[in-house]
Amino acid sequence: MEAKSPNESRTTLTDLVLPSETNPLNNLFGGELLARMDRAASIAARRHSRRIVVTASVNHVAFNKAIPLGSVVTVEAAVSRAFKSSMEIFIDVWVEDRESGRRTKANEAIYTFVAVDETGTPIQIPQLEPETDLEKERFAAALRRKQLSLVLAGKMQPGDATELKALFD
Amino acid sequence: MEAKSPNESRTTLTDLVLPSETNPLNNLFGGELLARMDRAASIAARRHSRRIVVTASVNHVAFNKAIPLGSVVTVEAAVSRAFKSSMEIFIDVWVEDRESGRRTKANEAIYTFVAVDETGTPIQIPQLEPETDLEKERFAAALRRKQLSLVLAGKMQPGDATELKALFD
Amino acid sequence: MEAKSPNESRTTLTDLVLPSETNPLNNLFGGELLARMDRAASIAARRHSRRIVVTASVNHVAFNKAIPLGSVVTVEAAVSRAFKSSMEIFIDVWVEDRESGRRTKANEAIYTFVAVDETGTPIQIPQLEPETDLEKERFAAALRRKQLSLVLAGKMQPGDATELKALFD
Amino acid sequence: MEAKSPNESRTTLTDLVLPSETNPLNNLFGGELLARMDRAASIAARRHSRRIVVTASVNHVAFNKAIPLGSVVTVEAAVSRAFKSSMEIFIDVWVEDRESGRRTKANEAIYTFVAVDETGTPIQIPQLEPETDLEKERFAAALRRKQLSLVLAGKMQPGDATELKALFD
Amino acid sequence: MEAKSPNESRTTLTDLVLPSETNPLNNLFGGELLARMDRAASIAARRHSRRIVVTASVNHVAFNKAIPLGSVVTVEAAVSRAFKSSMEIFIDVWVEDRESGRRTKANEAIYTFVAVDETGTPIQIPQLEPETDLEKERFAAALRRKQLSLVLAGKMQPGDATELKALFD
Amino acid sequence: MEAKSPNESRTTLTDLVLPSETNPLNNLFGGELLARMDRAASIAARRHSRRIVVTASVNHVAFNKAIPLGSVVTVEAAVSRAFKSSMEIFIDVWVEDRESGRRTKANEAIYTFVAVDETGTPIQIPQLEPETDLEKERFAAALRRKQLSLVLAGKMQPGDATELKALFD
Repeated sequence: MEAKSPNESRTTLTDLVLPSETNPLNNLFGGELLARMDRAASIAARRHSRRIVVTASVNHVAFNKAIPLGSVVTVEAAVSRAFKSSMEIFIDVWVEDRESGRRTKANEAIYTFVAVDETGTPIQIPQLEPETDLEKERFAAALRRKQLSLVLAGKMQPGDATELKALFD
Repeated sequence: MEAKSPNESRTTLTDLVLPSETNPLNNLFGGELLARMDRAASIAARRHSRRIVVTASVNHVAFNKAIPLGSVVTVEAAVSRAFKSSMEIFIDVWVEDRESGRRTKANEAIYTFVAVDETGTPIQIPQLEPETDLEKERFAAALRRKQLSLVLAGKMQPGDATELKALFD
Repeated sequence: MEAKSPNESRTTLTDLVLPSETNPLNNLFGGELLARMDRAASIAARRHSRRIVVTASVNHVAFNKAIPLGSVVTVEAAVSRAFKSSMEIFIDVWVEDRESGRRTKANEAIYTFVAVDETGTPIQIPQLEPETDLEKERFAAALRRKQLSLVLAGKMQPGDATELKALFD
Repeated sequence: MEAKSPNESRTTLTDLVLPSETNPLNNLFGGELLARMDRAASIAARRHSRRIVVTASVNHVAFNKAIPLGSVVTVEAAVSRAFKSSMEIFIDVWVEDRESGRRTKANEAIYTFVAVDETGTPIQIPQLEPETDLEKERFAAALRRKQLSLVLAGKMQPGDATELKALFD
Repeated sequence: MEAKSPNESRTTLTDLVLPSETNPLNNLFGGELLARMDRAASIAARRHSRRIVVTASVNHVAFNKAIPLGSVVTVEAAVSRAFKSSMEIFIDVWVEDRESGRRTKANEAIYTFVAVDETGTPIQIPQLEPETDLEKERFAAALRRKQLSLVLAGKMQPGDATELKALFD
Repeated sequence: MEAKSPNESRTTLTDLVLPSETNPLNNLFGGELLARMDRAASIAARRHSRRIVVTASVNHVAFNKAIPLGSVVTVEAAVSRAFKSSMEIFIDVWVEDRESGRRTKANEAIYTFVAVDETGTPIQIPQLEPETDLEKERFAAALRRKQLSLVLAGKMQPGDATELKALFD
């Protein structure tokens, strides 16, 4: 299986924030943004693997910036690292001011998907070859994140998470 | 007001076809595609004008290709010509085969939006400067389409629609 | 197959405009109206043909009148002409003022549907017999519209579109 | 205030049964039908009163006939009797077989709405003048139903419900 | 089949009132509440019977209290009596004030569900054993309601509805 | 401000998995579950604080168990620790087998919400007093999670995260 670049899976979902998606302060519900990011990330994972894909996990997501009703929101997702049958997807969320046209970063998120066959069994996928500096940085960090995830799930001893442990030395 | 390129308004909405959007043959309802295209086109119009925009008309749309449940559909919209306060938006719809990854053109459509102020009054917008050959071709054709639209609405005499009349000579 | 009258397919869909269907000016999104009209038209096409039907095309639609949040909207669709396996559906949209009860015409639209069997193959349908003057007028105009549609799709030479050409003489 | 006929409020909502509205047997959820009937009835109540209207109650509704996915369902609502500020709305639900075109009665339901001003205070409405035999029969029965409703709510002594009591003699 | 207590089927659905579910006074549509109650009741019926269940009827429901946009609504449903294959479900609806935290009763409703097999044929279900005083009272009243329902449907002579007749003596 | 127990904010949202929420394997989309959990958690946060609340972050969530179409899913959320104006909400997700009635744990998730006033400014909230062993354990762990979150956001030096650092020693 030939390796692929992040560009081959990059997925853009630009859409409006509608009244049925907003909280009492008239900002996009956190849960709605999580659902939109899941849809974009699942398409990116599918484009990389050309398989059925299912959400395996979502990394810590911080909602630092409120996204008001009527905003144009762009969710951009691309595979940041491929493992055996799982993929890490890095998602950037941008919000756009109508009058100035200025785009500001509203969120980042990291989802993991697994490629499966029709019976739901995990199946091997192509590797990822990062190209830009940002892609290479995200590719490297993905390994640390995988270790953290295994530690938190109790599937790896903290002492074995060499990449992660280094952070605390 | 400075002219803008089509790239400055280009809007991509990639999303899945869900079960609640399909007809008895398990294909995307025509009406759902029209609604998705309207959302993407309205964002493109807003990006060009930085104003509130409202749908003014939809040109003839042909549905030549069924889009099955579970497909990944990409709707790409960009302003193709700007008039005084109205804009023509050209929309390309692509559908993607999961296994081969091959994208095929599913539809083209042309919507017209008007930029308005908070009271709904039409307001002047920047002109469009096409760059690629395809953009220039669509820019030229937009004038013929505007004439056809005026003739069909009874607001222009067929004999005055010089661009259009030429087609039948 | 016996011919049918427009009344046998006439379909009425009266419903409210809800907050999730409105734009920043609190008017019904053009795209939502297109989707509602598609649903009503597909039922009319199905009533005429008693077959599975799929949207083949939408004619030029102009949105001349904003439809505010909370309005009662009536979409009325009926077959205006039947061809071999395709039908033209004429749609009238009315909006109703709550206080005066006055109904005003908000839109007209023309959709074409094709009747198909379970495999998606086009299948023959009954002819239409118009009864009222308005129905006869729409029946006649449907032929011109079909020619225009074929010309725009590049499937008929403008010179062969006799009904259409007459308009420009 | 001039009395009105049931025809002046008659409201027709014809629509498809979509996959997101069906239970595990692929039939329309009872709750979805109740919601559709409420929308049609509220429009009928509004047409009669030309006021804001709110649902006051729903009479006993029996679901005798399953309505399968893909059906065309017609909900027809009209005011059956007007009281001081409340109206009884009688709703007939029809389901249509695609192949034979035969319409069968699927349900009947009776909703009561109250007309209110902008502050939510009940307000007087026009009376109803039934015209056909069916309308007259429903008009008469509406009084018995109102008594039953008051008895069940503990607002009327069973012995005072003369119309209702007669049923058990 | 062993009898079950109401607690074994008790189902709680706590959720927000969203903008797409409210009428022009910004209160929850009656029809939306009917649909939510149907979902909660169907889960209670399924928990009692462990079968596919379908809505058979809804008793008279009065909407005495408006439920404003943004409210937290709790729908609590439990089987109140089991018959051969049908179950009566009693539903309590509570609305909660955000600032004081006070819960007030907004509605009560009674739905009847039937347990069926995969072909839709009614099938026997466990009996219900009420435990608290309130459960015993609702259990007793369920028989009178069943008789009323049969009388209204013309399936029982009013004179045979001994439980019901007693009310009017 | 008086401290509250987790029971005072405990929120239960039991609902069905509908066709419009499932992926090509007919299992609940990860994104839909994230949105449901956000709704339940926001109600728990609101019950604890009696304020407007906004999602601040979501901890790592693993999707270990597919949740099939037609399942009954119970999302149970309660405040696990209160800080100055933010609250950690612990969410347990259960899925229920229709035939056996057996409930299995499908997911756990941890969301953080911030209480704000009408202008969106954070505002002080009551503290949490855990009661059961499980509540006490989650209360203690919440502090470690807050440190991890601050470290990941670059707002705390890893060396200062004493609770967290202990894990790696």
